[in-house]
Amino acid sequence: MSGLIRYGVTKRWSDAVVVGSMGYFVEVPDNANGSPREQFELVFQQVEARLAQIGSDKSRLVQVLVYLPYVEDLAIFNDLWDDWIPTGHAPSRACTHPQLAAPGYRVELVITASIF
Amino acid sequence: MSGLIRYGVTKRWSDAVVVGSMGYFVEVPDNANGSPREQFELVFQQVEARLAQIGSDKSRLVQVLVYLPYVEDLAIFNDLWDDWIPTGHAPSRACTHPQLAAPGYRVELVITASIF
Amino acid sequence: MSGLIRYGVTKRWSDAVVVGSMGYFVEVPDNANGSPREQFELVFQQVEARLAQIGSDKSRLVQVLVYLPYVEDLAIFNDLWDDWIPTGHAPSRACTHPQLAAPGYRVELVITASIF
Repeated sequence: MSGLIRYGVTKRWSDAVVVGSMGYFVEVPDNANGSPREQFELVFQQVEARLAQIGSDKSRLVQVLVYLPYVEDLAIFNDLWDDWIPTGHAPSRACTHPQLAAPGYRVELVITASIF
Repeated sequence: MSGLIRYGVTKRWSDAVVVGSMGYFVEVPDNANGSPREQFELVFQQVEARLAQIGSDKSRLVQVLVYLPYVEDLAIFNDLWDDWIPTGHAPSRACTHPQLAAPGYRVELVITASIF
Repeated sequence: MSGLIRYGVTKRWSDAVVVGSMGYFVEVPDNANGSPREQFELVFQQVEARLAQIGSDKSRLVQVLVYLPYVEDLAIFNDLWDDWIPTGHAPSRACTHPQLAAPGYRVELVITASIF
């Protein structure tokens, strides 16, 4: 099990798991009180903090699965995303509109990032 | 193609694929006859068997995408999941409620596991 | 950041990202004008071209998440898929029916492939 590192382990999930040079994590906003824009800004901040925690940064995103349960949020999400992604470093991305387990949340991100 | 190993290959999918130190597989219950609880217990048994087949175990889960097509199953799924995951070894996890291709099935799991 | 290679980078996403021996990419048909069958045939052609671009081929698919927003497309998709996958080289596969971000598109594929 050398090379498998878990961060923020709870009974149900870990905040992040690193195997070798790859980090895997999932983020939803820390609270669902904000507007869609506020939730998206919050989750991007959380992703940056998580990347820093595992020794990566937003220039090393590999693949992001974007879950947007509310179809009408897509345009504002994309506007914020385009500003947030560093030029020349966009990840592979898929965006779908499934219902999330947590009600009220406007976004969930499944992230793979390189730590080298 | 050294280091790419397929298990249980059919025309449509392989039961598992291992590349280097990482195993990738998808599980649905072997049958959809049971109650939600029975389906969840069955799929966890299948995951353990699959992990053993590829030389891993449930302490080395890296990331799990949980698809629960029936929203009302979440609480019972989480109860069983929390008991099933070994303390200190929880994976990264995302849970959404998409419709599955196979009718009657209450769960599908997309799994990444380390084999070292 | 050695070993992280991006192909077809835009502001929003990259066409593909390769890290070490693994390639990650997402494909939707280049246009949504065709019938479901035509869209599926088109996306398979695109996947083959993308695999060639990153130094892989369809015998080295590792895992594919199939998003089919229209439930009624499953049978025709599977027929074409079964013909397209080389015998003995099927990937791990999950198929769900979420709504896609792009209206009119009948399929989105999230692909992991080995380049060795």
